[in-house]
Amino acid sequence: MRSYAFGIDIGGTTVKCGLFTTDGTFIESWEIPTRSENNGSQILPDIAKTITKKIKEKNITLDDVEGVGVGVPGPVFDDGVVNGCVNLGWGVLDVKGQLSTLLSGLPVEVANDANAAALGEQWRGGGKGFSNVIMVTLGTGVGGGVIVGGRILAGAHGAAGEIGHITVNHHETERCNCGKKGCLEQYASATGIVHVAHKMLNESDRPSPLRSIDPLTSKDIFDAAKTGDPISLELVDYLGKKLGTALTAVTAVTDPDVVVIGGGVSRAGQILLDAVEKHYKEDAFRSTKNTDFKLAVLGNNAGMVGAVKMVLSKD
Amino acid sequence: MRSYAFGIDIGGTTVKCGLFTTDGTFIESWEIPTRSENNGSQILPDIAKTITKKIKEKNITLDDVEGVGVGVPGPVFDDGVVNGCVNLGWGVLDVKGQLSTLLSGLPVEVANDANAAALGEQWRGGGKGFSNVIMVTLGTGVGGGVIVGGRILAGAHGAAGEIGHITVNHHETERCNCGKKGCLEQYASATGIVHVAHKMLNESDRPSPLRSIDPLTSKDIFDAAKTGDPISLELVDYLGKKLGTALTAVTAVTDPDVVVIGGGVSRAGQILLDAVEKHYKEDAFRSTKNTDFKLAVLGNNAGMVGAVKMVLSKD
Repeated sequence: MRSYAFGIDIGGTTVKCGLFTTDGTFIESWEIPTRSENNGSQILPDIAKTITKKIKEKNITLDDVEGVGVGVPGPVFDDGVVNGCVNLGWGVLDVKGQLSTLLSGLPVEVANDANAAALGEQWRGGGKGFSNVIMVTLGTGVGGGVIVGGRILAGAHGAAGEIGHITVNHHETERCNCGKKGCLEQYASATGIVHVAHKMLNESDRPSPLRSIDPLTSKDIFDAAKTGDPISLELVDYLGKKLGTALTAVTAVTDPDVVVIGGGVSRAGQILLDAVEKHYKEDAFRSTKNTDFKLAVLGNNAGMVGAVKMVLSKD
Repeated sequence: MRSYAFGIDIGGTTVKCGLFTTDGTFIESWEIPTRSENNGSQILPDIAKTITKKIKEKNITLDDVEGVGVGVPGPVFDDGVVNGCVNLGWGVLDVKGQLSTLLSGLPVEVANDANAAALGEQWRGGGKGFSNVIMVTLGTGVGGGVIVGGRILAGAHGAAGEIGHITVNHHETERCNCGKKGCLEQYASATGIVHVAHKMLNESDRPSPLRSIDPLTSKDIFDAAKTGDPISLELVDYLGKKLGTALTAVTAVTDPDVVVIGGGVSRAGQILLDAVEKHYKEDAFRSTKNTDFKLAVLGNNAGMVGAVKMVLSKD
């Protein structure tokens, strides 16, 4: 019986590392810089080095380690091969094989970071106690992950869970970062709601405390909504409508127990959940109308927690 | 090593039964009536009886049978319990447990019939060779199924794959059979396209061969489109737009290898695939833009074939 496991979440600037016991208890976390120069060739050796160092520091051996789970900001095939990762300078890269080799054959599992975060929230966060979970992350962009029976749905090209790029407005004239028009991300991300706010403020002279804030953030909009500002309430309702409607399509296809909403925008709390659920219920198919909505609870640790879960759930 | 297995597809009027060898070879199929009277209490005993009779007829024994897979026209939980089935008179019913008891403990697996059909098409039909398949069935209604890694995605309430009830028109004033407004089923089912045709014909005096056909069917519309009738071409394009757009949401979430289109409407063939793919590509997220589209090939046998697959793929 091996006693320890590592969860690694590779970001564009730092790699978040976590040591856990194999019963899932968190011991400690630390960060190292992500060296993306030279096509990111140092990233996996750096991770192997920091793991080896931690093992020595703790007076344990490789034989005490069950494995290493890794979250990566790009599409990942089922076999642990990353299908290109612009932020890290990676093309197609066998992360599972290479990291395992660097760690003397230790088992390694790899997933997309949003999918790993969804698994983390399902295991230990907002989706705890449920095995079928949709996670949607409202940050700079809108990410997502689908957990089915406690496992990540990776998809044929490692691209499952791209909830942010469901088209929710066929009349949009501006483009999403992905090149399409009318993606959910254009309305429900932190930048999206601010963009919609600027448009709405420019279209009328209605008074709003938002007019005196520069630069405006999504938090400002939710804060003003909580004090009753009509324009801010409309903006929150609009986000709720776009996200709620997109989620009716997601749940019609996957029928989850619960939808977990995370990312910076979700710090708005109950006012966000209420706006989403209201529009969701108006438009959901009957079998999925009572799907639960929860806030994420693990914050930036979700990816690391989900990563380690992958090596604890082999069957 | 057991040599035989049964695939059973329970419909509203008949039960379709199939005998297969455990290497998946089809031997024969037959039908018995579905006795839905008395809350459908005779259906499972009738199925046990016809299986027992077939076993005797073939001079085999229960010990030669690997198991029985069953497709049911209602939601089915992961544990083989049916969550109500109006057509059969069933409430919540442990189909897996009861049928197994009636067959001296033979292993039984149960799935929703649309999901079973999706598994059949993935295993032996339009999705053969792929492990991640979306199937959409354009019949009287629009059904669907999601196969992930060669297995049915059942969902938390047995309601996954309800592609027909994704909202594709937020301005619809008429209701779908499910009670919602603007469901894909209202435009892409056999009845839906005819309904749209009547509306379009009534809105203008433009000539069309469709005007002289009564009652009009979806086949008439596709046939007229193939001869170049402008109104029929518009109708096919409209169906393609609604279905193609809905499928971009489905593939953004599940990232399948292939989308298989079946049901009576799919007999229209390439003209239907072309219309769907055209609109799909306009609106799909980049990672899923090249998802393959195929026609279903198993017809009404898909459910029976998928049902038997469930007892051949235990691991």
